[in-house]
Amino acid sequence: MKLNIALLAGDGIGPEVIDQAVKVSDAIAQKFGHEITWKPALTGAAAIDAVGEPYPDATHEVCKNADAVLFGAIGHPKYDNDPSAPVRPEQGLLKMRKALGLFANVRPTFTFPSLLDKSPLKRERIEGTDLVFLRELTGGIYFGEKGRRDNGDTAFDNCVYTRAEVQRLAKKGFELAMTRSKKLCCVDKANVLETSRLWRETVQAMEKDYPEVEVSYEFVDAVAMRLVQWPNSYDVLITENLFGDILTDEASVISGSMGLMPSASMGAEVSLFEPIHGSYPQATGLNIANPMATVLSAAMMFENFGLMEEGKAMRDAVNKALEAGIVTEDLADGGKAYGTKEVGDWLAANI
Amino acid sequence: MKLNIALLAGDGIGPEVIDQAVKVSDAIAQKFGHEITWKPALTGAAAIDAVGEPYPDATHEVCKNADAVLFGAIGHPKYDNDPSAPVRPEQGLLKMRKALGLFANVRPTFTFPSLLDKSPLKRERIEGTDLVFLRELTGGIYFGEKGRRDNGDTAFDNCVYTRAEVQRLAKKGFELAMTRSKKLCCVDKANVLETSRLWRETVQAMEKDYPEVEVSYEFVDAVAMRLVQWPNSYDVLITENLFGDILTDEASVISGSMGLMPSASMGAEVSLFEPIHGSYPQATGLNIANPMATVLSAAMMFENFGLMEEGKAMRDAVNKALEAGIVTEDLADGGKAYGTKEVGDWLAANI
Ligand SMILES: CC(C)[C@H](C(=O)O)[C@@H](O)C(=O)O
Ligand SMILES: CC(C)[C@H](C(=O)O)[C@@H](O)C(=O)O
Repeated sequence: MKLNIALLAGDGIGPEVIDQAVKVSDAIAQKFGHEITWKPALTGAAAIDAVGEPYPDATHEVCKNADAVLFGAIGHPKYDNDPSAPVRPEQGLLKMRKALGLFANVRPTFTFPSLLDKSPLKRERIEGTDLVFLRELTGGIYFGEKGRRDNGDTAFDNCVYTRAEVQRLAKKGFELAMTRSKKLCCVDKANVLETSRLWRETVQAMEKDYPEVEVSYEFVDAVAMRLVQWPNSYDVLITENLFGDILTDEASVISGSMGLMPSASMGAEVSLFEPIHGSYPQATGLNIANPMATVLSAAMMFENFGLMEEGKAMRDAVNKALEAGIVTEDLADGGKAYGTKEVGDWLAANI
Repeated sequence: MKLNIALLAGDGIGPEVIDQAVKVSDAIAQKFGHEITWKPALTGAAAIDAVGEPYPDATHEVCKNADAVLFGAIGHPKYDNDPSAPVRPEQGLLKMRKALGLFANVRPTFTFPSLLDKSPLKRERIEGTDLVFLRELTGGIYFGEKGRRDNGDTAFDNCVYTRAEVQRLAKKGFELAMTRSKKLCCVDKANVLETSRLWRETVQAMEKDYPEVEVSYEFVDAVAMRLVQWPNSYDVLITENLFGDILTDEASVISGSMGLMPSASMGAEVSLFEPIHGSYPQATGLNIANPMATVLSAAMMFENFGLMEEGKAMRDAVNKALEAGIVTEDLADGGKAYGTKEVGDWLAANI
């Protein structure tokens, strides 16, 4: 296969972890006979510094014409404490999601047997946890009308959803559930919100098309509790943008290995793959960041092209590295810590 | 002191736990020379069944004219799976909050040394946790305009906040922080929402009036993570209605003893006190529900009247019962389980 991949390294540790994912992906390409062309483009604070915009048109062109986007991380401390600054890296992120139509954010949370003890949760609560959130990513209160009235003394944010938006996301949820244990949980706040009632009635109407899938409906507050109590009682969860933002971050803590968690954002045309961790500015350039989440994101990318063996080869390499203790300091637990680059080299060599 | 207390027992186990709180409060009144008049009134599914409405006018009259409201729990399974039913118990709850102006929901989360092992979190993560959420309760997306367009295919919920609403809640937060460790965390999503930016700028402007309070600003998704990772790094947290709904429920899991967690909802005139647990319909009438959260809610009520010793006497009785193993089955851990009524009797006898 010939693959054109847009490469958005971004800020902080982004470039370092992206480098490793590229290296491991190239090893895959070589082994399985694919040809990858990487197309680097600017984003985040790096793009603001260079051209004054976090998601420049030139970057959008590169992404739109690519077969997929591999993304590092964005965010820089100089923008952190000023959410009202005129230009911010996050705006680029939201613009990119909308412009590329990345409507479904896929966030798996799973445990690695060798890392169970790193979780803040007790082992018996998390053993066997393997769940996936599908978060709607281009609608809801993120993109509704927002503004001020009364000389700035009243602020508003409108949350809007259409039936078509819900159907599109829910369809992905049902399909994913069919490939797993056929359990789907729709997370909403239908006892209070009209948008949630639209979500619920839309998903209810789709149930008949997937008779094998067992669907449950839970309120977002109840899920925020049960995720910590019994994460392994969930499988596929679908939810709207803001609930998804909160719950996927909560869920990411469960495994105790955030440095290992990948994600995908699926669009109709192009999809994007990125580690869930941030730009970790303090670690920039220190060669200590864990590249595994980015490598596993690249594995999701291969699988999304239908290249299942390729994805599996990458996952296997990561598992082998974990077992062999070829890990960065976040996972070293007092043992030897390898550098970002060294872990990347080892993974590439073990493809 | 002469106290007029509206008594809204509600549904499920509500009446049973309320009975125990009344019993223990009466023991306090006798010991400290107060006179409590209890004014029972209907609410929840019980009120729908009786008069067709979850928060009848007659109940509102009783609450409005009381010095405080002691509340049990509402909710009945027959309404659970139908959020679009024309009359639902939750509507009564929202109507009551608005009508009584209960703008600040106070939700403490603390650990009991003897119960640390019941938490899903590891002991070393939660030891010493003692935090309080102040959740705004009468504004935001709960009460903004909501509805449908396009023949029902588009739904919307408007989230609105005024500066005055934020100030009122934040003032309580700063005041509470002054009585504790002087740490205040404002939880928002100011990188995306205009209402959050209003929250943040309003709280920032108030900082100068409380120079001793150290204020931090965190995004709701980050708090959802850190609450599970390091709950004991928080003290007082203030937030808007929907974020508060999700985060307070998440936080309630930390202590491992939800059956012990009280809450208060403060208004300008009257305030309401209630356990955070629900109506637990399966346990109705079985004399197995834990009455301690309701007793501790009554303790918060006494303290809110400035009766600190009375509140302390109730807390001490609960601690003594926990140490002596006079507990309901949720805390019995294979040991002897006492009934709801028996625990209430013991607490009253130990005032
Ligand atoms: C940075 C922010 C705008 C973003 C979001 O809220 O979607 C982030 O939290 C995420 O989840 O990707
Ligand atoms: C029942 C529901 C409307 C309510 C809320 O969302 O406020 C509940 O979850 C709560 O937190 O008291």
